[in-house]
Amino acid sequence: MSQKGVLVVISGFSGAGKGTLMKELLKQYPNYALSVSATTRQPRPGEVDGREYYFVTEKDFDEMIAKDQMIEYACYCGRYYGTPRTYVEEQMASGKDVLLEIEIQGALQIKKKFPETILIFITTPSAEILKNRLVGRGTETPEVIAARLSRAVEESRGIEEYDYVLVNDDLAECTALLHQVIQDQHHRACNQMDFIEKTREELKGFCQ
Amino acid sequence: MSQKGVLVVISGFSGAGKGTLMKELLKQYPNYALSVSATTRQPRPGEVDGREYYFVTEKDFDEMIAKDQMIEYACYCGRYYGTPRTYVEEQMASGKDVLLEIEIQGALQIKKKFPETILIFITTPSAEILKNRLVGRGTETPEVIAARLSRAVEESRGIEEYDYVLVNDDLAECTALLHQVIQDQHHRACNQMDFIEKTREELKGFCQ
Repeated sequence: MSQKGVLVVISGFSGAGKGTLMKELLKQYPNYALSVSATTRQPRPGEVDGREYYFVTEKDFDEMIAKDQMIEYACYCGRYYGTPRTYVEEQMASGKDVLLEIEIQGALQIKKKFPETILIFITTPSAEILKNRLVGRGTETPEVIAARLSRAVEESRGIEEYDYVLVNDDLAECTALLHQVIQDQHHRACNQMDFIEKTREELKGFCQ
Repeated sequence: MSQKGVLVVISGFSGAGKGTLMKELLKQYPNYALSVSATTRQPRPGEVDGREYYFVTEKDFDEMIAKDQMIEYACYCGRYYGTPRTYVEEQMASGKDVLLEIEIQGALQIKKKFPETILIFITTPSAEILKNRLVGRGTETPEVIAARLSRAVEESRGIEEYDYVLVNDDLAECTALLHQVIQDQHHRACNQMDFIEKTREELKGFCQ
């Protein structure tokens, strides 16, 4: 089983409880590191630099791209969001499994650069349940509801590009399943190439 | 999570305890079906038709190939071995996870025809341990030992074509891990396409 950490992208419907799930995973198991994205947008009240995001200038962001220091980046509403390379690589080298909570655009960039990355999509047990959560408790305007549903349709595009689709029905069950699916990645052949090579070379040696 | 069974190929070094592992898996969990291969070789004493193998004539075997009733087949030492399609498909449709214990040649044929199949390779914790098992307890001739080691080198080719490499150190632990890795496959996106399509269509419906 591989000693190096694995890279895990977690995406999912807004409203599927992805954030709570990640918090629970980090709380229950010590072996995860959550990557913090960099962004050029302004911090909102209560947001702390280095916790929610690294807040950087556009000049800094451009420079990080130019120096290949972003393993993925994307632009939403005129602001840039990206994943700094150093933290991810350091944590993986130290044996931590690194979690990235990003959307499909970034997920596919990462899969292309690091094919061993696993992409996990979190969903509700049904579209109906998602709708009920997005509609809220009768407090939202029809415009807000329409915007949320249309965002969910957007998010649903490309689900099949993900490796796993996990249904978040019960939080405790889904946390345990998420952990299990990630830990199983350590047993994938692509994550054990050193062990495979070593075994093969030693076997050949015995035959000489 | 998919209701249909998944297809699992299990290969591994002779001496890695693959057979015992499969028996343990079938004993502990009710949801597996072990596919029985067809062969043109003669039954050995104690072998029962339909248990170890389906013993068929070369004419029958050729006919099954011609009618595309073998999902894979290979020739070893002038005898044919293959996996009959009907049993595998029926068991999967009924929700059973189907296990095939075959070698790499057949494993790759199956992966090509059914890309969702997972290929699992069972190994010992080290080449040294495998060697000690193959050498036996001082009862084997140098020729037998050489043949066994050379077979292990053969078997070690193409390990990286497998999806998972599981180390069989402790039988109970490895059985649990094997079960877990197989059950995780039900959560892969490719095994939940109906659910994904349905969710997507329903979400689109809400926006109209």
